[in-house]
Amino acid sequence: MRRIDVAQAAELIKQQSRILILTHRNPDGDTLGSAFALMHAAKKLGITAKVFCCDVIPEKYSYMYCSEDFGELSDAYVITVDVADNKLLGSGEIEKYKDRVSLCIDHHISNREYAENLLLRDCAAACEIIYDVILALGVEIDCKIADCLYTGISTDTGCFMFSNVSDRTHLIAADLITNGANITDINRIMFETKSMGYFMLEAAALQTVETMLDGKCAVMTITKEMMAKTGTCESDCDGIAGIPRKIEGVLVAATIRERDDNTFKVSLRSHAPVDSAKICLKLGGGGHARAAGCEIRKDYFEEDKAKLLSAIKEELESI
Amino acid sequence: MRRIDVAQAAELIKQQSRILILTHRNPDGDTLGSAFALMHAAKKLGITAKVFCCDVIPEKYSYMYCSEDFGELSDAYVITVDVADNKLLGSGEIEKYKDRVSLCIDHHISNREYAENLLLRDCAAACEIIYDVILALGVEIDCKIADCLYTGISTDTGCFMFSNVSDRTHLIAADLITNGANITDINRIMFETKSMGYFMLEAAALQTVETMLDGKCAVMTITKEMMAKTGTCESDCDGIAGIPRKIEGVLVAATIRERDDNTFKVSLRSHAPVDSAKICLKLGGGGHARAAGCEIRKDYFEEDKAKLLSAIKEELESI
Repeated sequence: MRRIDVAQAAELIKQQSRILILTHRNPDGDTLGSAFALMHAAKKLGITAKVFCCDVIPEKYSYMYCSEDFGELSDAYVITVDVADNKLLGSGEIEKYKDRVSLCIDHHISNREYAENLLLRDCAAACEIIYDVILALGVEIDCKIADCLYTGISTDTGCFMFSNVSDRTHLIAADLITNGANITDINRIMFETKSMGYFMLEAAALQTVETMLDGKCAVMTITKEMMAKTGTCESDCDGIAGIPRKIEGVLVAATIRERDDNTFKVSLRSHAPVDSAKICLKLGGGGHARAAGCEIRKDYFEEDKAKLLSAIKEELESI
Repeated sequence: MRRIDVAQAAELIKQQSRILILTHRNPDGDTLGSAFALMHAAKKLGITAKVFCCDVIPEKYSYMYCSEDFGELSDAYVITVDVADNKLLGSGEIEKYKDRVSLCIDHHISNREYAENLLLRDCAAACEIIYDVILALGVEIDCKIADCLYTGISTDTGCFMFSNVSDRTHLIAADLITNGANITDINRIMFETKSMGYFMLEAAALQTVETMLDGKCAVMTITKEMMAKTGTCESDCDGIAGIPRKIEGVLVAATIRERDDNTFKVSLRSHAPVDSAKICLKLGGGGHARAAGCEIRKDYFEEDKAKLLSAIKEELESI
């Protein structure tokens, strides 16, 4: 599939009268911020636009949209945002769009190029690309669009803490604040408010942390029982996955989470120069250099876990 | 004392051949980043400059300076940075400078104006002001200065998370990155590195959290046994005290920590408009509106704790 630049993507969007923007499953701040920012911008150009996702959008993102903004749209030009692989759209009604994606806007190294592709791998967040696309569309960034884009940029960078942050990330943040992004409320919602269940899950998960490979690798386990006891869900686990990397001396941290479907989800987080994506690729997964994921089969748990640890060991030895 | 602007402050500094820059006691990233950035800039103008502080500088800030940069300097023009009150310089050798401060560069609302004052209360960090002063001095920002300024700005804003952040904060951060600030290492050292003991203490303490008063108040307990088991110290507890305030719905959180003498230290943290200082005053303590402290006696534990909870209840009812 053809690679295109920001100007070409904006040109393609301008030619449409109806667009449907799809996010990845288990939607996070970046995929949702990208989708709703682009939707608001398209509407300002008179384009009919909606956002669709296979999962329910977590309540905390509700400031981004109204209920009529969400849903399917017939005969529309289909755009995915922050979706590295069309498999990541998930299942259900959304599956019919999998082979009908016209434009993919993404920043993942692991992108599978399943559509016309605006792929900028140096961007910390897909929202950085959407910011450029919106400017190329000639749409003024209002406070609603600014809120959406700020959400994606702040959440995908751990509030400007991760190594993916560039000078441009901060320049865009400055412009979004100038244009009215409500960073006080967004930061409080995204980073300063956790449910009691989240904290209890964190406490339980931390008790399972083991360090290995000279303290350079930490492994944490989250069981279904822990999640049931604390009343937490998958998105709570995403936040927790970043914690064991913070342990002094740890270069790579794996969080192994039991799922309903006979698999364990592995979330890998690393410090430079350890390449998480490279490790996860060896187990059929993928992602970014500092945050990637793969799967472990329940029936082959010990075997797959050993494979994971050996991939980690290899990467640690290569740096 | 006279209030001056950035250009005037730069002019005063340029006239000197020797400057001594003082930080506040228990130095943090902002006072140290301000001091060493200004010191490096002054040296580039041929001015002899040193930084002095009553306390030992924590090891994690060592990338900012060499050992000969730290110490007293005779016959020097004395500047304080991020020091709201000359009492905050602390005690010991530094005391002789208390009444010899010529220039104070600060951003605190509570500043006591004890010298010629470059006071910009809208700045999130003193380092934002120092950035302007360095530009006004005509000094180019190199990677060393950028590291110092980025440290102050990032630590005083909780890595761009607090409500004191403005568009200017991000614009300055962008420029510092452009000029070579090593944000990956600095963010890792300041925000992403905790001892395993710290995490284990956090996990144990979280297990003790109880919420009360309609979920608006959380109480967490840290015992001597927990600290002994995890090998942690008092400063680890300071970090943990902020956590229960993050629980959804909690307006005020009390962390009760067992001490070696016959007392428990209470650390109170609140969200606006709950006044922590007002609550702690009723138990003979004090502090700031959002972070305050008091004591509970071990021999009268239940009695004192009830008094604390009733003071919290009164404050919650009054808002």
